Amino acid sequence: MALISPSRRLRRTPFSDGVEAAGVKGYTVYNHMLLPTVFHSVEEDYRHLKEAVQVWDVACERQVELRGPDAARLMQMLTPRDLRGMLPGQCFYVPIVDETGGMLNDPVAVKLAEDRWWISIADSDLLLWVKGIAYGYRLDVLIDEPDVSPLAVQGPKSDDLMARVFGDAVRDIRFFRFGWFEFQGRSHVVARSGYSKQGGFEIYVDGTDAGMPLWNALMEAGRDLDVRAGCPNLIERIEGGLLSYGNDMDRTNTPHECGLGRFCNTATAIGCVGRDALLRVATDGPVRQIRAIEIEGPVPGCDRFWPLMDGDKRVGRVTSAANSPDFGTGVAIGMVRMTHWDAGTELRVDTPDGPRAARVREAFWI
Amino acid sequence: MALISPSRRLRRTPFSDGVEAAGVKGYTVYNHMLLPTVFHSVEEDYRHLKEAVQVWDVACERQVELRGPDAARLMQMLTPRDLRGMLPGQCFYVPIVDETGGMLNDPVAVKLAEDRWWISIADSDLLLWVKGIAYGYRLDVLIDEPDVSPLAVQGPKSDDLMARVFGDAVRDIRFFRFGWFEFQGRSHVVARSGYSKQGGFEIYVDGTDAGMPLWNALMEAGRDLDVRAGCPNLIERIEGGLLSYGNDMDRTNTPHECGLGRFCNTATAIGCVGRDALLRVATDGPVRQIRAIEIEGPVPGCDRFWPLMDGDKRVGRVTSAANSPDFGTGVAIGMVRMTHWDAGTELRVDTPDGPRAARVREAFWI
Repeated sequence: MALISPSRRLRRTPFSDGVEAAGVKGYTVYNHMLLPTVFHSVEEDYRHLKEAVQVWDVACERQVELRGPDAARLMQMLTPRDLRGMLPGQCFYVPIVDETGGMLNDPVAVKLAEDRWWISIADSDLLLWVKGIAYGYRLDVLIDEPDVSPLAVQGPKSDDLMARVFGDAVRDIRFFRFGWFEFQGRSHVVARSGYSKQGGFEIYVDGTDAGMPLWNALMEAGRDLDVRAGCPNLIERIEGGLLSYGNDMDRTNTPHECGLGRFCNTATAIGCVGRDALLRVATDGPVRQIRAIEIEGPVPGCDRFWPLMDGDKRVGRVTSAANSPDFGTGVAIGMVRMTHWDAGTELRVDTPDGPRAARVREAFWI
Repeated sequence: MALISPSRRLRRTPFSDGVEAAGVKGYTVYNHMLLPTVFHSVEEDYRHLKEAVQVWDVACERQVELRGPDAARLMQMLTPRDLRGMLPGQCFYVPIVDETGGMLNDPVAVKLAEDRWWISIADSDLLLWVKGIAYGYRLDVLIDEPDVSPLAVQGPKSDDLMARVFGDAVRDIRFFRFGWFEFQGRSHVVARSGYSKQGGFEIYVDGTDAGMPLWNALMEAGRDLDVRAGCPNLIERIEGGLLSYGNDMDRTNTPHECGLGRFCNTATAIGCVGRDALLRVATDGPVRQIRAIEIEGPVPGCDRFWPLMDGDKRVGRVTSAANSPDFGTGVAIGMVRMTHWDAGTELRVDTPDGPRAARVREAFWI
């Protein structure tokens, strides 16, 4: 692996000082911002995440804020998920599609009020798409990236840690709901959500200057809980089937190919830009779809498509892979053609280190 | 510095195998793609760039292709530069602005034909803005990212190296013009352009599979010219005043603030989305502008805004900085308020390593 060269373009976050002090060893870049990838080792971070509690700098989940009389209309234009029943205080995972039904992002929409939304984005400049659509349709809406930076608290001891800093009321936040909670006189959105299957919260930290005081308070309050700086963990997220935009899907994929059909209500999502393009695939289903793939390990790091083969025939590709300590196998996410996507189908995956036996699974590991 | 974690999301390029074989030591991420930053050392790469010839993997300069009857209309909507006089075969540096006149990108537009353009982009997902505008205005135009990856040949011996591979006709290409040149039976756009002041070309390599054969041919043909793998060089580009989108400017800046007023014809750029917003600043001028800043060295790496101070008063900020061997000083790019932007103004810059004396220059170093 090579080093990452610092520059202003790879934006630091309100928590970067804390991340560095905790001895971050690796980064990726996400929304033009630094995202830590490893502190001790990916395996050690994984073990700790499953047993204790971690604080994650996920400021790179930037917000696209929609504000104004046309905010709700615009939000529905962006996604085939029917948002009519969504209430302020709720978070919805929303596939965002272009006019062809291709995925532009897979963010979490946060409904702050009828006329105010945050879109907590994955790795693409969704702001540009949203601004372009709003301008083209002359909508009455303000669109901007506010100074709001998510900090995640993840792991089985998350509730205990959060209660110490924000009070016991945080325990009552239901999954994908949020409330406003005070810290040092400022109010922050706190949601029960996060990019792991170990439970936890995301604090939408309001204001760069509030970042390090909160980081430090969480570290201090959780000392006896063995709190550590952490980050989204490659192994755990694959085991849990958490997709990564840009890795597991991109603009060439429909939500249905990504297994996100349950988040689409294409028939009733009136106004959605990609609605017409998606109606047929919403009814008939896709011809390829994301699957959990078990691979005979050990597998190398996956930094490119690995072809999934049935003999000489290419039937799909692996896009994320890791070696799972808990399941004692290579765990992977791949896109597989309909002809070969049934659970139990035996395939071969061609990795840069050579071919490996692979098997399509019924479900992810958790 | 920390390591960069590989993943499919940080896309490899058609030339990555060559880059790795040449011993790349550092990367940045640009348009979700790996961009090498250093091979030997930034200083050694700099010296070699100025004396010999380098081959650069700049595949991360992705193309946004516009094709169809409304392509030219759409292209003019994107920029305040008047494109009416532009001919096929020309390249134009075009500030791209949003409806407020804020910079979204500073690409090179390549006019392939009246109804076919490439926009060779800096680091933002401009495709999403262009698609959004085209959809909102119901334009008859296809917009996509083709499988075209620029490979730059830069340095004083560029003409000699290119002539050996593409024939002597490449010597006749004028600055910011291009022609079609064959390599192994396939035709590629070759332009006299590039992100250095040392002269050279950019080959818009058509097709991933054509990448490594061309890379290898250039390396082979240039052996006695001391050809090496290289990359945009931080020191050289600051000396030459080559701006970097995301470092030196972003969506909060107008082209005029970036000193790009000479590329704007706001009055006659009919149809440009940001025209109304820019008319006044185009006439009156901006209240802050990019300047070359000389800093008493040595300076640390610049990965955040460095405040430019006049006593207690903040009058600007530095966004890129390096230590120049040739000029024996810290060289920097900064944005300075009108009250303090005159050449010779003495300022202080607050770096993370402490304050440094700084001086506004009349022009960049080259």
